[in-house]
Amino acid sequence: MKLSARNDIVGKVAAITKGQVMAKVKVDIGGQFLTSLVSVDAVDDLALAIGDEIHVIVKSTEVILGK
Amino acid sequence: MKLSARNDIVGKVAAITKGQVMAKVKVDIGGQFLTSLVSVDAVDDLALAIGDEIHVIVKSTEVILGK
Amino acid sequence: MKLSARNDIVGKVAAITKGQVMAKVKVDIGGQFLTSLVSVDAVDDLALAIGDEIHVIVKSTEVILGK
Amino acid sequence: MKLSARNDIVGKVAAITKGQVMAKVKVDIGGQFLTSLVSVDAVDDLALAIGDEIHVIVKSTEVILGK
Amino acid sequence: MKLSARNDIVGKVAAITKGQVMAKVKVDIGGQFLTSLVSVDAVDDLALAIGDEIHVIVKSTEVILGK
Amino acid sequence: MKLSARNDIVGKVAAITKGQVMAKVKVDIGGQFLTSLVSVDAVDDLALAIGDEIHVIVKSTEVILGK
Repeated sequence: MKLSARNDIVGKVAAITKGQVMAKVKVDIGGQFLTSLVSVDAVDDLALAIGDEIHVIVKSTEVILGK
Repeated sequence: MKLSARNDIVGKVAAITKGQVMAKVKVDIGGQFLTSLVSVDAVDDLALAIGDEIHVIVKSTEVILGK
Repeated sequence: MKLSARNDIVGKVAAITKGQVMAKVKVDIGGQFLTSLVSVDAVDDLALAIGDEIHVIVKSTEVILGK
Repeated sequence: MKLSARNDIVGKVAAITKGQVMAKVKVDIGGQFLTSLVSVDAVDDLALAIGDEIHVIVKSTEVILGK
Repeated sequence: MKLSARNDIVGKVAAITKGQVMAKVKVDIGGQFLTSLVSVDAVDDLALAIGDEIHVIVKSTEVILGK
Repeated sequence: MKLSARNDIVGKVAAITKGQVMAKVKVDIGGQFLTSLVSVDAVDDLALAIGDEIHVIVKSTEVILGK
């Protein structure tokens, strides 16, 4: 499936922190790190584990610019 | 000012397309490109121009993961 | 690719309206309609056309409840 | 009050999971399920309970398309 | 209808700019101004006009803090 | 750094509730209150404390209007 979301960066799962409902996933995109807050359900459903190759996907309307 | 948003990638403005209300800004983050959809007002207010150093900022709740 | 986004409804493209930067896509999910605002680039890249089967994907953090 | 958000699907609350800050609400929209992540405060303030009729509201800019 | 979205500020419509797909609505909340980017459809459907009393609604997950 | 996000309201931190992953921050903007849901990491990184002057920042695409 091809997505309308214009931003797709590939990285590796560096850390996973689970709460009761939400989980934080840190992704290493080659030295820099990106963070995603998703549901624990999503982490379990994708069977995310440290070292997994992962796509970081962001819809362009969600991107803020700073100069 | 320090932001709560956890994702901040530095790049260079590669292209700007303006509509009547919305504008598309393409940012080169070192070979890969990110796209942001902001208001034309924002582009004008930041005086964005090709080649400008720019921060791409995304709140972690907006980040989708794909595996 | 499996997504962390928990909401995925399948429908058919019912209408496409293109502006200069943004496009509106109306999706028929069996009588009800959902609307998506994406970039014209996304519409072109996915080669969206009336009648196409399409997935409507929404991250759960974006969903507001009303009672 | 009429909302600018273009997407409003009616369903029934199927499950509620509360953490300390966030809650997950599963909504049955007639066989399919939608998930919303809201604050525990919101769940309490709306007095959400299993079986309640509920509106699932999504702003069109938040809708990603996949083909 | 009561919403799960925790932020609701009342103001008056100060300006409306329509493009082909998107519209910008400026809201005066008592000296300060807030801006909303919605579809032209939404502006038409709500029959928005300068001076209208309007609710500015934001889901808490969308709010970034800066210090 | 100047942001593309068009909405920036200054207030004071009124309350902080931390879960394991997410935190809720209530901001007093002069009688009215705004709520933000951010990661616990963000609260710690900004060293947020009751009474701090804080900017509430919202991208215009995230703002829903109700009439």
